[in-house]
Amino acid sequence: MTTTENSTDTRRAAAVRQPAAPAVPRSGVLRPLGLDEVTLTGGFWGERQETNSRATLGHIHYWLERAGWLPNFDLAVAGTLPEGRHGREFSDSEVYKYLEAVAWELGRRPDSELETLFRAVVARVAAAQEDDGYVNTQFGRPGQRPRWSDLEWGHELYCIGHLVQAAVARRRTSPGADDGLWEVALRAADLVCEVFGADGIQSVCGHAEIETALAELGRASGDDRYTEQARLFVERRGTGVLADIEWGRSYFQDDMPLREADAMRGHAVRANYLASGAADVAADRGDDELTRALARQWENTRAKRTYVTGGQGSHHQDEAFGDDFELPPDRAYSETCAGIASIQFSWRMLLSQGDAAYADLIERTLYNVVATSPSHEGTEFYYANTLHQRRAGVAGNSDELSPRASSSLRSPWFEVSCCPTNVARTLASLSAYVATVSDDGLQLHQLAAAGITTALADGSAVELRVDTAYPSDGELAVRVVASPASPWTLSIRVPEWAQGATLAVNDEASADVAPGYAEVRREFSAGDVVRLSLPMAPRVTQPDPRVDAVRGCIVVERGPEVFALESVDLPARLTRGGFENVRLADGATPRDTGGGVAVDLVHRGEPDVTEQVALVRYHDWAARGPSTMRVWIPTS
Amino acid sequence: MTTTENSTDTRRAAAVRQPAAPAVPRSGVLRPLGLDEVTLTGGFWGERQETNSRATLGHIHYWLERAGWLPNFDLAVAGTLPEGRHGREFSDSEVYKYLEAVAWELGRRPDSELETLFRAVVARVAAAQEDDGYVNTQFGRPGQRPRWSDLEWGHELYCIGHLVQAAVARRRTSPGADDGLWEVALRAADLVCEVFGADGIQSVCGHAEIETALAELGRASGDDRYTEQARLFVERRGTGVLADIEWGRSYFQDDMPLREADAMRGHAVRANYLASGAADVAADRGDDELTRALARQWENTRAKRTYVTGGQGSHHQDEAFGDDFELPPDRAYSETCAGIASIQFSWRMLLSQGDAAYADLIERTLYNVVATSPSHEGTEFYYANTLHQRRAGVAGNSDELSPRASSSLRSPWFEVSCCPTNVARTLASLSAYVATVSDDGLQLHQLAAAGITTALADGSAVELRVDTAYPSDGELAVRVVASPASPWTLSIRVPEWAQGATLAVNDEASADVAPGYAEVRREFSAGDVVRLSLPMAPRVTQPDPRVDAVRGCIVVERGPEVFALESVDLPARLTRGGFENVRLADGATPRDTGGGVAVDLVHRGEPDVTEQVALVRYHDWAARGPSTMRVWIPTS
Repeated sequence: MTTTENSTDTRRAAAVRQPAAPAVPRSGVLRPLGLDEVTLTGGFWGERQETNSRATLGHIHYWLERAGWLPNFDLAVAGTLPEGRHGREFSDSEVYKYLEAVAWELGRRPDSELETLFRAVVARVAAAQEDDGYVNTQFGRPGQRPRWSDLEWGHELYCIGHLVQAAVARRRTSPGADDGLWEVALRAADLVCEVFGADGIQSVCGHAEIETALAELGRASGDDRYTEQARLFVERRGTGVLADIEWGRSYFQDDMPLREADAMRGHAVRANYLASGAADVAADRGDDELTRALARQWENTRAKRTYVTGGQGSHHQDEAFGDDFELPPDRAYSETCAGIASIQFSWRMLLSQGDAAYADLIERTLYNVVATSPSHEGTEFYYANTLHQRRAGVAGNSDELSPRASSSLRSPWFEVSCCPTNVARTLASLSAYVATVSDDGLQLHQLAAAGITTALADGSAVELRVDTAYPSDGELAVRVVASPASPWTLSIRVPEWAQGATLAVNDEASADVAPGYAEVRREFSAGDVVRLSLPMAPRVTQPDPRVDAVRGCIVVERGPEVFALESVDLPARLTRGGFENVRLADGATPRDTGGGVAVDLVHRGEPDVTEQVALVRYHDWAARGPSTMRVWIPTS
Repeated sequence: MTTTENSTDTRRAAAVRQPAAPAVPRSGVLRPLGLDEVTLTGGFWGERQETNSRATLGHIHYWLERAGWLPNFDLAVAGTLPEGRHGREFSDSEVYKYLEAVAWELGRRPDSELETLFRAVVARVAAAQEDDGYVNTQFGRPGQRPRWSDLEWGHELYCIGHLVQAAVARRRTSPGADDGLWEVALRAADLVCEVFGADGIQSVCGHAEIETALAELGRASGDDRYTEQARLFVERRGTGVLADIEWGRSYFQDDMPLREADAMRGHAVRANYLASGAADVAADRGDDELTRALARQWENTRAKRTYVTGGQGSHHQDEAFGDDFELPPDRAYSETCAGIASIQFSWRMLLSQGDAAYADLIERTLYNVVATSPSHEGTEFYYANTLHQRRAGVAGNSDELSPRASSSLRSPWFEVSCCPTNVARTLASLSAYVATVSDDGLQLHQLAAAGITTALADGSAVELRVDTAYPSDGELAVRVVASPASPWTLSIRVPEWAQGATLAVNDEASADVAPGYAEVRREFSAGDVVRLSLPMAPRVTQPDPRVDAVRGCIVVERGPEVFALESVDLPARLTRGGFENVRLADGATPRDTGGGVAVDLVHRGEPDVTEQVALVRYHDWAARGPSTMRVWIPTS
């Protein structure tokens, strides 16, 4: 037996039960809970998770077959590639992200039919793996380019990263599963460590992703080699190891060492995946300098390079961050995947630091990017999430692959179809982002209807039920079902916008609580109820004066939801001469219309004639056919 | 002899002397003058033309050799292509645009050294032409893709179009030249007519250009076949003959028939080249419906899709027009070539319609796009011309090819290096855009120091001398050196911004003249002087309220020049915390500082402490090293 085989066996035996969660750092002030510990019970996110389960996963499977991306693996086995291969160089990764989504879904709720489907896809992938662990349908065969010959654009390590993430998800949700995915991932990761190790190719993948995947594999397997390889990749990038390209090396964050940067830059998905991997390495290596650098970049990026929706990445051309305050609402790219990647980064920083600001940005991004991408039916998606649509799109054939990332309408599938699978794996694992435990107690970060059954740091069992219709209203009740007899602290996040929130325990008088974490420390008993009341009146948000593109405009928000003006809600009188002639009536403030929000608007040409117009929740826009839309409303 | 050879001979014999000008339509209210009729005599444009002659042409020749784009033709002759080929698929066209520039330059001022260089380049191109007339270094050989196999992106017809334009320029400036370029172009054009004629491939080139080139070849050769082929290309486009692409068929204007469109859309250079070719076809075929469609598109594009600089094309990603009023100053692409193409379109509409608005936009674009691209030395260029630079660039090696189209600094050469050669051919032929004649007299469209020696419609000789330091000041004197004894009309354009201009003839009292054409009709005598006085106080321009990105900002202009705020002119106190904190002081108006313009600015944090700051002419920005810059200045 070779050493590698030996070590694989050891790792297989050594792997211990971990939380069924995407990220399980070796250090940090908060510890994540798994899908078996937190269950969404209806409400805003529970319903979306159901739609994901009922409609999206099947939709994705259908398209992976139809687009030929899953059959590519069969062609690899048959030895007929490259002929007949379909899809871009990263299409394998969509199969892996689908597997990851299904792994979480099966962990959330076992389903024998879905289990069978999952195993069948794993078997097709496993069959295509080569003897030395390499797996990719685009490289390395006669008639294809050699392995690792195009690190800038080839996405080989990126694809393996997603394969590894799928395997980790499966391992944590079904530790004993004998489907073979874990072994496939280990063999691929071993090859990566061999080829790109300290003595190997001194480069990185143009699209970060392998870093966070390997770090998590290190955690899930207990094998530090993977963590070390993740660290090597993180440290190498930024030293000019990739070729210069039209948009500069900042596109793939290879322009400066990560720990020297002040803000995220370049391709927004790559930047956030890289930052996530770096946060993993920092947590597992106790690298406080790296953590501080990431915290600085996160804060600068949030303050200067993030849309009011939480969206990131202003540029269409290179899907990249703009400069500070370069946040035009029209042509906002705000890619769905960038939002998801930003949540992954914020989540890792939250686990590390425990600061509510990270959970605040996660909430903003969840409600206004992640919830915006999929249609209500869960079968059409936004790739980009503009904040201003100037021209109504044309309703297309909803059964067609869309070549365009940026339309005013959602599409069932894209030539670059990273977003649907990313939405699916995020929704399927969403309960893992709701709560954590610490040495001191339990923290509720996202205000969602949920059941929580876990153990506190001392191992004592706690069970909670969170009831809320949030964000329809601002009332949240945490009922204690079971608690240890000793005191512990229940922390509930009060969102940054929630000035005037109050908290009450049982029949006690309610107290004002400031944004951050409202803490209740006591000996809880079954039947105790902690109630949080958030102010849900619609509010006007002024822009940062340094953001040129929205000067003289405001945005209306209510709770965590951003609202928008959609043309289908406007009387014809206001849109005479174009949507551009509409502005807020002088002195107008948004009104709550019982579940909805309305504002008084005027036509520039008739500033004295006001019309009350309903605003639409941004995540709901374009659900009624082609329309124009704007989040920022001119005031003068 | 075959019919084709016969016809070629006929055309060679039949070609008559035409104005040495880029566009010589068969109909239109104005007739162009050639380089032999109008001479720039110093001043703003004369100096730039000298720089072009002295520095830019040699710089381009050097880079064409160094980048391998000219040697590609030698490799073709040697039969060693595709190995060793350098440059993108359109690199041949830069050689042709260089030839066109030199042809104009030689027409402007013969120079035996330059003539020798020109002939040597022509010989290398001619040697690479294949027996059937095809010439392209990128397609058709073993190991290359087949001819015409990628009309969307291959640029084969585009390249031939530029070859034809070079040959027409040479034919009109040196009618008897025996260098062979004319024959090379005819043979290539004949092949195009054969392959893409009424019975040929029913498609067009992804990048319009061949249309205007063939129309001009029809005019220069007297052979209507070329005109007809141009017409076929114009009519075919817009019927979905090209493949759908990520950005949609509008990218290459294949989304709807040209005559049905209301505004220009898609790639801004392509759109303007196409419109130029369509204007040619409309003029030569007397197609008034097409002319009306173009006039409508021109006006909507000017009013809703053009920057205050005259720049066109908001999008970096697809180098395309945005929607109406989508004109963000930051990330303004405003490609130099789009400005040049816009001038070509406007010029053709001006010849056709005689409306001053066309000449107004040409002036705006000349001063603020064409003059902005080249450095004062004429050896570095802007590809894109942003109106807001948020981050200072890094001074690079000025001897390096730049992969990036959008930097804050000019570059000597680009991987896509269309702009330097386009600037060169435009400056070399610029005197052809200064004046025209009509049945009624002579029109001065651009207010440049010039000598004009031509014949009026009745054949009588007229000679004028235009003296002016415009735009340094607003005084322009047109001296009559020779004139027929009969009355004729001298028309001088009063720019659209020049409210309060006055005109005086000899010692007569001056009279107010409105924007448009100021006309003086009389029997002119040698010695007569017509003086135009334009108001040159700096002025504040308010934005269209429908342009979101500049709400709450103003721009300062003086004469035809747009001014900008450049960081190198700002005291440190004002830029504390970033360039974004600067705004106009309340109630401030720009002041003339004797040749310059200054405004009072404040820091947002100290609105009561004003600083007088000099503005820079936009076309002069970034001449003092890396800086940040903004054209639109916030007012509050």
